[in-house]
Amino acid sequence: MPKCIPKDSVGIVAPQLLRFEEPLPLACGRVLPGFELMVETYGRLNEDASNAVLICHALSGNHHAAGYHSEEDRKPGWWDHFIGPGKPIDTERFFVVCPNNLGGCHGSTGPRSINPETGQPWGPDFPPLRVRDWVHSQARLADRLGIRRWAAVIGGSLGGMNAMRWALEYPERVAHCVVIASAMKLSAQNIAFNELARTAIRMDPDFRDGHYLKYGVTPRRGLGLARMIGHVTYLSDRLMGEKFGRELRSGTFARGTDEPVEFQVESYLRYQGNAFAESFDANTYLLITKMLDYFDLAREYDHDPVAAFRHARCRFLVISFSSDWRFSPQRSEEIVDALVAANRDVTYACIESDLGHDAFLLPNARYERVLRTYLADAARRLAEGGP
Amino acid sequence: MPKCIPKDSVGIVAPQLLRFEEPLPLACGRVLPGFELMVETYGRLNEDASNAVLICHALSGNHHAAGYHSEEDRKPGWWDHFIGPGKPIDTERFFVVCPNNLGGCHGSTGPRSINPETGQPWGPDFPPLRVRDWVHSQARLADRLGIRRWAAVIGGSLGGMNAMRWALEYPERVAHCVVIASAMKLSAQNIAFNELARTAIRMDPDFRDGHYLKYGVTPRRGLGLARMIGHVTYLSDRLMGEKFGRELRSGTFARGTDEPVEFQVESYLRYQGNAFAESFDANTYLLITKMLDYFDLAREYDHDPVAAFRHARCRFLVISFSSDWRFSPQRSEEIVDALVAANRDVTYACIESDLGHDAFLLPNARYERVLRTYLADAARRLAEGGP
Repeated sequence: MPKCIPKDSVGIVAPQLLRFEEPLPLACGRVLPGFELMVETYGRLNEDASNAVLICHALSGNHHAAGYHSEEDRKPGWWDHFIGPGKPIDTERFFVVCPNNLGGCHGSTGPRSINPETGQPWGPDFPPLRVRDWVHSQARLADRLGIRRWAAVIGGSLGGMNAMRWALEYPERVAHCVVIASAMKLSAQNIAFNELARTAIRMDPDFRDGHYLKYGVTPRRGLGLARMIGHVTYLSDRLMGEKFGRELRSGTFARGTDEPVEFQVESYLRYQGNAFAESFDANTYLLITKMLDYFDLAREYDHDPVAAFRHARCRFLVISFSSDWRFSPQRSEEIVDALVAANRDVTYACIESDLGHDAFLLPNARYERVLRTYLADAARRLAEGGP
Repeated sequence: MPKCIPKDSVGIVAPQLLRFEEPLPLACGRVLPGFELMVETYGRLNEDASNAVLICHALSGNHHAAGYHSEEDRKPGWWDHFIGPGKPIDTERFFVVCPNNLGGCHGSTGPRSINPETGQPWGPDFPPLRVRDWVHSQARLADRLGIRRWAAVIGGSLGGMNAMRWALEYPERVAHCVVIASAMKLSAQNIAFNELARTAIRMDPDFRDGHYLKYGVTPRRGLGLARMIGHVTYLSDRLMGEKFGRELRSGTFARGTDEPVEFQVESYLRYQGNAFAESFDANTYLLITKMLDYFDLAREYDHDPVAAFRHARCRFLVISFSSDWRFSPQRSEEIVDALVAANRDVTYACIESDLGHDAFLLPNARYERVLRTYLADAARRLAEGGP
């Protein structure tokens, strides 16, 4: 619980559930008969609706990006350090919109929701989604809020894929696209790590082929292991070394004892896995990791990212982190190279950090300065009527 | 099945089971009431028993390092490319000894063996081992074979830890120590990956707290996932990209279909996991990954590797591989630095390779040349009576 709400916080916020009645055709060919999005907004939409920023969350994120849900709330939203009055995504300037993604498990329509055709939760029968489906659902959200064009669409990791897809699907509706610690497509190694996580979930006897809700159980252990696997890959080797070294949590190496030894890093991972398993849905995890694997920015553009980006009309900011080996700087540089070849306006920064992929969520002076400067400049351009 | 046994093969070989009656005190304080080692040997021990080479296998290895078990054998031993007449570990010159390690599951005493006190398999009650316990059991093996001093002790990965521990525990009994793709201790990230694998095994309902043999079941899925996790970390990102890219094994990305898509890399990993789970023992996997985690070369030397290596009397060859991120070249260089500071004789080579940690098992011209040259030189020195 914060002693008091900090002055640079967006304060107490309340999510709202928005219902969209019109059926949504999906990339897979199926049609979602209406859907709901759980959304938080911070700041105020200006008169000409030109200051709206869309925040696209990553795999384990949700709509609660900033502020507190109550005075008793122990922790603020997941990107609170970056969103608020005077912060890099300045709510004095921007109207910030953050939905829980379609297929998610924090209030938006997803595998936990009731399938209107059966009256039962969708579970594993929820349609497979592509990132473009998120974009289309978010376009409906923009319509509902009266936003014709986003001042910026911002996302890290999978959220960066979401942001890039916006720039291609609705070129006229995005002024700036901010792509952080992302990639145009996953590598085989990345797909492999996702498959390990999915295997862990499917292996849990409580998974029941995805029908666990029907049986009143939760595949907590599988989901926990899935998260542990992800977590190891989001941290750098060096950070783990600094954070845990080879410190023991229990046991001893003394000769003459065979009590089990447990390293700090083991219990830390277990804690992370358990906490995640309490709040997340296994079918959502499977669904969204598949979206990550399938994403390939240029697939429909003859596998030519330059041709793909020629459709974009916005300016781009691309950010990577030096120690991120899951979405390495090389992946971001491929995005930059394609943008340059497509003659798009792009700013790129590789931020020195020991924090691995997780760096995109965490405080870092240079990262904040780059984001703040870029967005302040974007606001100035927009105020002058330019992109 | 080989059409014919190649000329540079050690040919048809037969493992032998050696029984050691004298109790073996273990680092944990318990005592193993006698033990058995399954062993293969290639080449001939010379008259003064000065040409014996000990091969220390890694986590998933065994005693079958070279040759074939029958004319119908489809595959030779796991290091056949390196061991044989005229090969880098030349059986015309050396008498090569490769035991399955204590605690293993390929014939040596381990969790699958009968605990003489209960008449039941040890299972999870098998004593926790340290790498030094392997060294002591292998010293008994040397005694039995009439080998006072090894011409060389050679090992990769965990086997390299085994080799280094030999050099410290029995300085007078090792002439040359060859440490390949190894480390003086694991990093927190390495421990984390091992813990993920152990969690997968313990999660399998067929694991039954390690008592699966009693129930006539095998935790195949958990063991398979454990192997999959390991396997991803043994390969480099680049190799996986070259080997699998984003090629599909099933399904299609065409719009208008929601059939599941499976990437090649996913089915490859599943195949590897299943194959391993058929042949390996889950309790052995837990036991040996813990040995890896616990290993810390300098723990008993006031955490000073230089002080530790001052006890060694042998010459060292240290080899690393450029794309190995599980046991990176940096880890090998730490070994080299400590050896140099301890005024030991050391040769070091970092081999260019895209194959990740697995490179230590696979053909590579420069790697073979380094090993061949070093060992030929060692043989010459030994023939001249030097170390």
